[in-house]
This record gives sequence, C-alpha cells and structure tokens, in this order.
Amino acid sequence: MPLGEFDLIRRHFDRPVRHQPLGVGDDCALLAPTPGQQLAVSTDLLVEGRHFLSTVAPQALGHKALAVNLSDLAACGAEPMAYTLSLALPRVDDAWLGAFASGLHALADAHGIELVGGDTTAGPLTIGITVMGQVPPGQALLRSGARPGHVIWVSGWPGRARLWLDAVRGTLRLEGASFEAGRLAMEYPQPRVGLGLALRGVASSAIDLSDGLLGDLAHVLARSGPTSDAALGARIDAHRLPRHPALAGLPEETVLACLLAGGDDYELLFTAPPSRDADVQEAAQRAGVAVHAIGQIVEAPGVEVRDAMGRSLEGPWSGYDHFGTQEGGRA
Amino acid sequence: MPLGEFDLIRRHFDRPVRHQPLGVGDDCALLAPTPGQQLAVSTDLLVEGRHFLSTVAPQALGHKALAVNLSDLAACGAEPMAYTLSLALPRVDDAWLGAFASGLHALADAHGIELVGGDTTAGPLTIGITVMGQVPPGQALLRSGARPGHVIWVSGWPGRARLWLDAVRGTLRLEGASFEAGRLAMEYPQPRVGLGLALRGVASSAIDLSDGLLGDLAHVLARSGPTSDAALGARIDAHRLPRHPALAGLPEETVLACLLAGGDDYELLFTAPPSRDADVQEAAQRAGVAVHAIGQIVEAPGVEVRDAMGRSLEGPWSGYDHFGTQEGGRA
Repeated sequence: MPLGEFDLIRRHFDRPVRHQPLGVGDDCALLAPTPGQQLAVSTDLLVEGRHFLSTVAPQALGHKALAVNLSDLAACGAEPMAYTLSLALPRVDDAWLGAFASGLHALADAHGIELVGGDTTAGPLTIGITVMGQVPPGQALLRSGARPGHVIWVSGWPGRARLWLDAVRGTLRLEGASFEAGRLAMEYPQPRVGLGLALRGVASSAIDLSDGLLGDLAHVLARSGPTSDAALGARIDAHRLPRHPALAGLPEETVLACLLAGGDDYELLFTAPPSRDADVQEAAQRAGVAVHAIGQIVEAPGVEVRDAMGRSLEGPWSGYDHFGTQEGGRA
Repeated sequence: MPLGEFDLIRRHFDRPVRHQPLGVGDDCALLAPTPGQQLAVSTDLLVEGRHFLSTVAPQALGHKALAVNLSDLAACGAEPMAYTLSLALPRVDDAWLGAFASGLHALADAHGIELVGGDTTAGPLTIGITVMGQVPPGQALLRSGARPGHVIWVSGWPGRARLWLDAVRGTLRLEGASFEAGRLAMEYPQPRVGLGLALRGVASSAIDLSDGLLGDLAHVLARSGPTSDAALGARIDAHRLPRHPALAGLPEETVLACLLAGGDDYELLFTAPPSRDADVQEAAQRAGVAVHAIGQIVEAPGVEVRDAMGRSLEGPWSGYDHFGTQEGGRA
C-alpha cells in the first residue's frame, strides 16, 4: 500500500485526545490514571471467518470489536479509560474504514473513552483491541469470590445471539421480528459497564457471558473453588431464566440451548450473598439494566439445571468449543 | 481445535504474576501503577509473511514480538510494567509454542515484566502485543521536543538488519560473520529501555528506529516543528554515523543505505541541547550503551546528509514504505 493509504487510514482513526495526556502519533500513548487506582486491562483478537462473517456491516463490526472488550471491564467493575486498536487489512477501502470507525467511535464516545494508540498493517482482516480501565484496589469484581449459598444473577436477556446464529445456519426458522432482535443482539451487544460499576462492593464474583451461561459459570466455579471446606457447584432454576420475547413459541429444548449455551451474550453473570438481594436490585436500577436471580452456588461439584418442580433437566448444553467452530478462547 | 489444545497453549503462557495484583485467568488483569505516574502504552501487530518470514526460529519471533514493543517504551523513557499477548495460530504445535514462549519469557524476565492477559484463536499466524509502562508526569520523552541547534544522537550500531535482509534477498553477498551479525540484529534486537530511562530530563526528543533513520527523523521533525519562529530540518554528518564491523568493506552507497534507510534497528534516535552533551554521555555510560552524535537540528526544512568535507550527499535513501513491502505502520 502506498503511503497515501496510510493517511487515509489515519484520517478515520486519528482524533485529538481530550481525556488523556497523549494519544496517537508518538511512540507511546500516555494515560493519567487516578492516583492510587489499579489498572484493569483486557485484550481480544477478532479474526474474519471465525469471530465474524465477511458479510457483517463494518459499523457493527467496529461496535462489537470494542464492545466485547468493554464487556470484560464491566465484568471487573472497572471504569473504562482508553483503548488501542491493531488492524490488519487485506485492502484499504475508504467506505468500509469510515463505517468501521464510526461504529467504534460511537461506542467509545458513549463510554467517554478514546483511541490512544494503534498499529495498521496489510494482512488477513484481523482486529485486535486492548482496553484499559481503572478500579480502586480491592474493589475489582473477580471470578473467584463465589461461595456456597450465594445467589447467581444474570443481567438482561441472554440467548438471542445464538438464536440468530441458528437461523443464519439454517437449523431454525425465525419470524422477521425475532430474527431482527437476534441480529441486533449479535451485532450490537451492549457492554454492561454501568452495572459492573454499580456492583462494586455488592457482587461476590462476576464474569461476562461470551461462551454461554453454563460455560462461563464453569469458569467462575473453577476460579472460586473448591474452597478448603467445600466443593463448589451450582443449581440453575430453568424457569427463572429471563426469556426474551424473541424466544417465545420455540421448543423448550431450543430455548434452553440458547439460554444456557448461547454464547455472544455479553451480559454479566454474577453472584452475591442472599443478604445483598436488595443491593443487587438497587445497583441494577441505578444502571438501568434488568437482573434476574437464576440459581445458587452449592456445596457439591457440578451444575444442576432444574425445572419449576425441582426436577433435574438433562440436555446437550455445554459451553461452546469456540476454537475451530466460531469463537476464540482467552489464554 | 479441541479444548485440550487450549490447555496446551495455556501451559506455555500461564505463569503466576509476581509483580502485579492479578494476571491471566480473569476477565481483566489488574496492574498497580506507582501512584501519580502516567501510563505509557504501545501496541504492535505482526503478521507472518509481512513482518517476519515463516522460516524464522519461533524463539527469535517471541523475542522480537516483545522487543519491538519494549522499544516503544524505551523511546518514551517509560519503565516497563506488563504486557498482553494476542495470538492467532493456524495450528497448535507444541514445540513451536514452547520455543516462541521461551523467547518471549526470556526477554520479559530480563526486563522484570510479566504477561498479564491474552487471547488465543485459530487463524493466520498473527502476533499482537500491547505493552504498558509508567513514567512520571512531564518526564516522558516525546517526538515533539527537538529544537534548532539540538544535537542528533543515535544509540548502538544501526544498519545490520537491513544488511542481512539484502543478503537474504540476494541483492548483496555477505561473509559468514557479517551475515550472522545481521541475522542476530534482525532477530534479536535489544530494546534500549535502560537508555530511555537514563535520558529522562536530558533528551529533548526521542524515537525508536523501526522505519530507517531518515524516515524516523522525519517523524521527529514533523512532530517538533515548524515552530512559531523557525522551519525545522536536520543535518546529518555521514562520517559520524557509527559503523559496525559487519558494514566494513562494502560500497559506501550500500553502507549509507543500510545506515540511513535500514529499518528494524530498534536503536534510539534522540536529540538534546548541545549543553547536555556530557549528560548524554553519562546516561549512555549508565545504560551501558554506546551513543554517537551524528548531526544537528537546523532552522531550514528538509534533511541534508553531508560528508566529512561538508559536501551534500545525494542518494536514494528514504524511509521504508513498509506497507506492502515488509513492515507495518503505526496508525
């Protein structure tokens, strides 16, 4: 690519920084964290054909690439500060770059953060984002704080992205409105940053839903236990799972597969002692996000899914094996 | 890739963090910057076939992927803290991963930093690293501080990587020892972190040499000027350029091409007022790195390369257009 194309790329991404001391254009960006706060860092790499289809609208891609990273900050209860972007591009397409950048900038602006550094190269379409946030020492929400008896909560309405994916793959037929609801959930996930902040000091553990609810719950259980005095497991009450209208009228097995093993939800799954139920509801109210209590951490290994009558449900639910199918896994 | 392969990848990269509060395994890593310091951040994306050949030893690749990022911190005078790694892999090869990780960990250990987060996915071999460092407010070395009369300095012995590349491409024949010196310079560049730290408060501007000396000098001139009262340019004294023995015996035109437009040097190019000459030498002595005064910032646009007699030299030297040839450009 000739140097002129660098200028073109730069035009879409270089904007003066307002919140940080130094942005794009020097060897490093400079950020000014609030003195005494810890820095929360997360990184994701999205590869075409694996994390997104070549047909996705570039604006949606820009949104989602940043959203999945902000979702990690949300799961830690961190306040977003800034992000960097690494981009490998097979070709320089002005319209594509403009739309991609607009999706990225719009979400960044909504969260008051800025692009502070980047790297662009020719190559197979790949998007690498590293996001940085801050959190007071000891207040980060970790995966490791779940204890027996703690209530399991989930934000929003998971399952729609999987629904849409099944429809696109042809394994499911969807009405127009449900298809559209699924597409929006898949392409424009809303990172629950405000909820993560509101849950500081309230939630005992948290994770964002990217691998499907049961898969991500397993990560929490693995990091939280076994404790010295108890094996750690969970009970999920299937009838308490929040069901978006787009899931209505579908076979129960399909609904549970979407809810429990959906993936790409970017809702928060978190735990809190039962004594904090009112605080959780208040945090959710402040953040403007619905939350639902869906089960409990128990002193027994494994995860049991129960129906309203207390009967164990069996199903082919499990976390995605994204690798080789469609998603990446965090190292 | 089956989940077992994730475990295998994890085995090579997951190591307990000693210097930071939380490393790999949660939604975010947590870092504890020294209160009041600014955070310096840089990111690079390396793509196979563009930034490195498929034949490069994986250990060298691990070293270099981190080295080029640490070099950006060095150019800012920042103290390295931690880094994240994003990796797209076409296949999981245990021996390759082990060697790659060993190159990475060895350089990280040498600088007292740790891998705190990452993301692994299947895809064309791509390595994304984001490195974080810290620097007291106002002490970062920027590209923008060069002023007329300031002396231009370079560390170490640039030009060897280009020499090796020319030999590999068949445009140049090299003796065994020179070939080996070139290969080492290309594969195991040493980021000048200690020198960058020692130059805090001494250098007026700095950049690391990745695009070739003249190309990177142009970045400094562009960021530093024109000032309100003067256009900004530079004079380079060709006979003062440090010449590594590997360059001996080659045609002067080849030598100057390597020195002035080499690329992949990862030395520091920096400026300082002439009154600070002794301080520069002392900083270099403390860092254990040779530095050479090679020219001066002048009040006239453009860069003039002169010989020992003061005659202007003309040559086809210019910064790489890496994009589409072999290197990426920073957005």
